[in-house]
Amino acid sequence: MENFFFGIPTRALFGSNQIQHLGFLLGREQAQRVLLTYGQGSIKRNGIYEAVITELGKADVEVVEFPGIQSNPTLEDVRRGIQICRAKDIDFILAVGGGSVIDASKAISAGVPFAGDVQELLAQGSAKIAEALPLGTILTMAGTGSELNAGAMLTVGEDHKKISMIHPLLFPRFSILDPTYTFTVSEHHSMAGCFDALSHLMESYFLPDRTTEVQDGMNEGVMKTILRNAPLIRANPTDYNARANIMWASSMALAGFQFYLGKSVIDFPVHTLSHELSSLYDMTHGVALAVLMPSWMRFALAKAPDSVATFAVFARNVFGVFEQDDREAALRGIELLEEFIVALGMPSCLRDAGVKHERLEYLARKAAEEGPMHGVCEIGEKEALEIYSASWE
Amino acid sequence: MENFFFGIPTRALFGSNQIQHLGFLLGREQAQRVLLTYGQGSIKRNGIYEAVITELGKADVEVVEFPGIQSNPTLEDVRRGIQICRAKDIDFILAVGGGSVIDASKAISAGVPFAGDVQELLAQGSAKIAEALPLGTILTMAGTGSELNAGAMLTVGEDHKKISMIHPLLFPRFSILDPTYTFTVSEHHSMAGCFDALSHLMESYFLPDRTTEVQDGMNEGVMKTILRNAPLIRANPTDYNARANIMWASSMALAGFQFYLGKSVIDFPVHTLSHELSSLYDMTHGVALAVLMPSWMRFALAKAPDSVATFAVFARNVFGVFEQDDREAALRGIELLEEFIVALGMPSCLRDAGVKHERLEYLARKAAEEGPMHGVCEIGEKEALEIYSASWE
Repeated sequence: MENFFFGIPTRALFGSNQIQHLGFLLGREQAQRVLLTYGQGSIKRNGIYEAVITELGKADVEVVEFPGIQSNPTLEDVRRGIQICRAKDIDFILAVGGGSVIDASKAISAGVPFAGDVQELLAQGSAKIAEALPLGTILTMAGTGSELNAGAMLTVGEDHKKISMIHPLLFPRFSILDPTYTFTVSEHHSMAGCFDALSHLMESYFLPDRTTEVQDGMNEGVMKTILRNAPLIRANPTDYNARANIMWASSMALAGFQFYLGKSVIDFPVHTLSHELSSLYDMTHGVALAVLMPSWMRFALAKAPDSVATFAVFARNVFGVFEQDDREAALRGIELLEEFIVALGMPSCLRDAGVKHERLEYLARKAAEEGPMHGVCEIGEKEALEIYSASWE
Repeated sequence: MENFFFGIPTRALFGSNQIQHLGFLLGREQAQRVLLTYGQGSIKRNGIYEAVITELGKADVEVVEFPGIQSNPTLEDVRRGIQICRAKDIDFILAVGGGSVIDASKAISAGVPFAGDVQELLAQGSAKIAEALPLGTILTMAGTGSELNAGAMLTVGEDHKKISMIHPLLFPRFSILDPTYTFTVSEHHSMAGCFDALSHLMESYFLPDRTTEVQDGMNEGVMKTILRNAPLIRANPTDYNARANIMWASSMALAGFQFYLGKSVIDFPVHTLSHELSSLYDMTHGVALAVLMPSWMRFALAKAPDSVATFAVFARNVFGVFEQDDREAALRGIELLEEFIVALGMPSCLRDAGVKHERLEYLARKAAEEGPMHGVCEIGEKEALEIYSASWE
């Protein structure tokens, strides 16, 4: 097992009506002027906005609203937020939303005390983060896991590059996770969130170090929870326990058990490939992942001999496959994954997802520009094109 | 799933030679006068003491040593530590040892700024803790999980009552977990530590709420890791990956995934029963747990109808039992647990562990004085005697 660091300083308050503690939490942070960030307004239709405003009213704080953060948030969103924080002397950010709102809010929190432009803090530039406004979150959509980690993903420039910002100061101070807040999330976005969380677990589970038994065992448990509960949500969107298990599973999926733990290479190749689809077609992240994952696995199985044993363990421990032969087991696991994707109502190929065949080369070139993707096997432009092509029909 | 709070603010540095970061960690805590706590001196025989002193020498701190903390640490140990901290104006405690040293150090850290006697801070009194000296740990023995949680267990009074202290301020600021530091732990104590961790997972896994699928799934993964790796350590005490997996498994076993998470009843009945054995016979905690656990499970199986399904799931998911019938599966699981205990070289009954039959009634009375034990089924004096008696031969 390789060396690693670990810690989850965010205080999670999980369960129904945990928002009742909002005033206490803000008081402990000595928040006085709060920037309330949210997205396109769905929280005004499902009652969450009222609940938040009511609790903020009881707390002795000034509130400045910052609505309209887009999904796949841009640096323009972030820069607007930074300006408002500076103009209004904001001392705390409260993000109410899913991964997009939380990620944008994290970038705002880092950008406010930074003298240069916030773009300098992306990627390797995250090391320049020396302070950040404290941030709390109220989660309304499960999937990204941003509520319990120190990362953010921003969309940058005309070609919508996805670039991350990661720093310990970006851990939220608290996150309120109320499963009932996800009852009204559409089936499409609910299932996409489930697959996003599953792929966080899968991609880290597949990294080469096989000595990380604790982490792999915990991963298996969380993956199996997603496989069982995602269809339950599709059948009944207000199934509390199913929503609760999916919400906590997606928090656990990216809370640092995986990539800090004995897996020194943080590399999610399918995530990189999927980002190009989201950029070009505005395809929901989790949908893009689901369409690509089986093809990537078949590709890896053909190209990386070590993956046979790894995928076989995955098939047996997560999908309960019994095949003795490793390659047979691995292939059966991929088939069952495909059946799961179909059961979630997701498209099973890029064509069905509306992607034009003639754009595959462009997608492969853009993905390769991110640099080679490691993990199970090396992926450059040629390999990316192979995977996109295999996913097309 | 019931509501819960969660967070692990302790920064864990896991792996070989992480002690190199000690100076950095102390610097970040602005430590100037450090109380170095340790036990009976084994760290002077295995080189850990020198390594710590060398790193402390590079850090710009004054060091006051506080050796001699006993296993099953007493309030007398704690009071001596508090006096020294006050006399020497200590501002940071560095605990080097296993659960006993860390637990005593946590109690010292809470006692120093407290005006009354430290005993007042035990059990419900923990709520009175308003501040605590910051604490860091260097773990030298795996099992209790104290290095990554906010609890401590103290031995109080002439009849050696075990009473806990739990408060968020008792989370260590950092914990250095170097698996090589456990290479020289005796087989006896290594195996006892493995079983201690396993029983933390088992007892929380068995609590009635079956909707906690994420937590149960993570628990299963950690339990299976212990089952695989404990025998590897017995065969080869310097097997790095086995030591690493056991060290991380025991940290994860009590880091708050279990009892904060949807399991509102924190109740480890076998732990309570085992404490009496440790008090009367100075029996190693993990050994006492191993001797009692199968008898407690058979007792619960007979008395609590709900436990049949729970133990069957345990048998299937953790021990890979295939029996279709729940009761058969549950019983097969208990048998496999007993085989595991024998494989660890532990006594399989209280008689073999040196317990006199005529003391069982006394043990049952003392256990019942702790109040009724809940969990799977209610346990009072009569039930405790049944379990002790069944464990005797």
